[in-house]
Amino acid sequence: MADNIIPSFKASDLVIQLSSSLKRKPDEFDYGAVFTDHMLTIEWSESEGWQAPVIKPFENLSLHPACSSLHYSVQLFEGMKAYRGDDNQLRLFRPTLNMSRMSNSAKRACLPAFDQSEFLQCIRQLVEVEQEWVPRSDSVSLYIRPTFIGTEPSLAIMKPGHALLYVILCQVCPYFNTETQAVSLWADPKFTRAWKGGTGDCKMGGNYGGALFAQYEAQDYGCQQVLWLYGEDHQITEAGTMNIFLYWINEDGEEELATPPLDGIILPGITRQSVLELTRKWGEFEVKERYLTMAQLCSAIKQQRVKEMFGSGTACMICPIGDIVYQGENLHIPSQDKNSQLTSRIAKELSDIQYGRTPSEWTYLV
Amino acid sequence: MADNIIPSFKASDLVIQLSSSLKRKPDEFDYGAVFTDHMLTIEWSESEGWQAPVIKPFENLSLHPACSSLHYSVQLFEGMKAYRGDDNQLRLFRPTLNMSRMSNSAKRACLPAFDQSEFLQCIRQLVEVEQEWVPRSDSVSLYIRPTFIGTEPSLAIMKPGHALLYVILCQVCPYFNTETQAVSLWADPKFTRAWKGGTGDCKMGGNYGGALFAQYEAQDYGCQQVLWLYGEDHQITEAGTMNIFLYWINEDGEEELATPPLDGIILPGITRQSVLELTRKWGEFEVKERYLTMAQLCSAIKQQRVKEMFGSGTACMICPIGDIVYQGENLHIPSQDKNSQLTSRIAKELSDIQYGRTPSEWTYLV
Repeated sequence: MADNIIPSFKASDLVIQLSSSLKRKPDEFDYGAVFTDHMLTIEWSESEGWQAPVIKPFENLSLHPACSSLHYSVQLFEGMKAYRGDDNQLRLFRPTLNMSRMSNSAKRACLPAFDQSEFLQCIRQLVEVEQEWVPRSDSVSLYIRPTFIGTEPSLAIMKPGHALLYVILCQVCPYFNTETQAVSLWADPKFTRAWKGGTGDCKMGGNYGGALFAQYEAQDYGCQQVLWLYGEDHQITEAGTMNIFLYWINEDGEEELATPPLDGIILPGITRQSVLELTRKWGEFEVKERYLTMAQLCSAIKQQRVKEMFGSGTACMICPIGDIVYQGENLHIPSQDKNSQLTSRIAKELSDIQYGRTPSEWTYLV
Repeated sequence: MADNIIPSFKASDLVIQLSSSLKRKPDEFDYGAVFTDHMLTIEWSESEGWQAPVIKPFENLSLHPACSSLHYSVQLFEGMKAYRGDDNQLRLFRPTLNMSRMSNSAKRACLPAFDQSEFLQCIRQLVEVEQEWVPRSDSVSLYIRPTFIGTEPSLAIMKPGHALLYVILCQVCPYFNTETQAVSLWADPKFTRAWKGGTGDCKMGGNYGGALFAQYEAQDYGCQQVLWLYGEDHQITEAGTMNIFLYWINEDGEEELATPPLDGIILPGITRQSVLELTRKWGEFEVKERYLTMAQLCSAIKQQRVKEMFGSGTACMICPIGDIVYQGENLHIPSQDKNSQLTSRIAKELSDIQYGRTPSEWTYLV
């Protein structure tokens, strides 16, 4: 049995060094740019293994200019949130799924394994130290960013022999400043987010840096995000950094909530999985992981078979989609017009769980 | 005219801060891990533009833990070398091509533009400061690593408003320790290096981090590098981090040196371009940028139409390929058996230019 245990740091070894001067909490939120007073860092090296986890005052990282995270993108991250309920209790939402996905990303990035449960306990303690930063609000939350980088000080392209696992926290409002407004998407096969045999199903930095250029091209076309297409048949894959859902009457006349399957190019989103599980439990309509092409979408829009469309992700949670610019045409999705009944219902049910208004086994108490 | 000038730092503003204590030069080379005494750094911000370039003692970078280079892989690099000739003169090899490719990568990564000629002059001065580090040897050289990273201290996924351009130097021996031994390649469509609409034609970090896992799988199969395939027809694209060349009798019975075309998934290698230009100038056989599939290669091997195969890149320069493991079979390339006549001749001609034994307009004097 002992052979199966991953060599890992232990939460019980955690060292906490509190900051002597605390920042003033901001009155307004600047998405992802105001960080809390402390951070969690855990160092690893091939020769010495994992060091004890440390919670310490937030500070810059001192990195060798040749380190593999800066040259070869040996880097990955997770996105989680801590929510404060009306009962003042702090909760995380399905964090074991983040730990599991992070382990998969680490394997793909050739970074060392760690014990997921020990890491989650360290994160829990960091959130506890920073509990005053978790807003008293049912729309704002504390964003948790676990990050894992290669710190090997060498230009040789190889598995890093040094790495740093760290966690930083910042307050966030909902990601898109459109409130309940639906976002517009630019769909062009010119750019591809991910591809078979690549890293699209892992949360690795390279997926994002390569996507940035297209995001600005989308803005040039008056859209807020990119609708990522794939292949000759222009499969719909993701929107911006969100998974995507289509609620429609499908080709067989069935009412269906559909999202692309996890075939290697789709990020296995935790909100995605939760939307699937939640709506399957309702049992009110078909819920399918299936391929969706632009041709299918265009024809469904013409035939008024599209009801709603939305993106899902930790940052935005559930984000209605209003318009898609594709091949010079503006495709209008009637999400907003019908008051996004399904979109709103899903958002409310998830939010009720996250803020503790509905008891759920998806809740992890801090 | 003035409108066309890119706002840039100027080499004439360069500040040089020499180190008070110099390192001992190493006797042996550890590829890419022993750096010189100084580095070049140039900071940029959206609000203040480019700052004056600084050559200063080599030191760690102090980076905000949320910076975009560590989370979203907003990062790119170049690879160049400084060679010391028998005449003691230091030379770079076609560095303006590196500057031009680096500008393309910067555009793709949403990093700011700079004046290529000013940057090259700064690099020249860094090499001059570190001239004692350029080995007196015709096989070893000083590797130059220009690097450009986003340093925006925010988790928002956007064009960075802060960036750092820097250059570090290290001694290198030829990358593969096989000397004149040919390398073996593992060809499996399971992993894809780059894809249409992605970043494969730019030197961005994400291309490398995503490729690392496959490199170790290649080693598990007893091979040194990955032969990257693309598409249903298993097109041959690159080998490891090298461009690839096939010297063969093609399907039409013509003697041909072939390499895949720059269709967006191939890195526009400077050694690649030089091999094409050199051999086209010879005019002794067909030189073509064309698609090559594994089926074509397999059938040519069976019919004994393959003469040699080699990789090209700044790190390895020219590297003969000996074997390819593909679909459970070992395909033997007779490069080595025939003394790699073409491979050796190209390597010698390029090396003669790099070390100044043959005068060439490709030479840039330090």
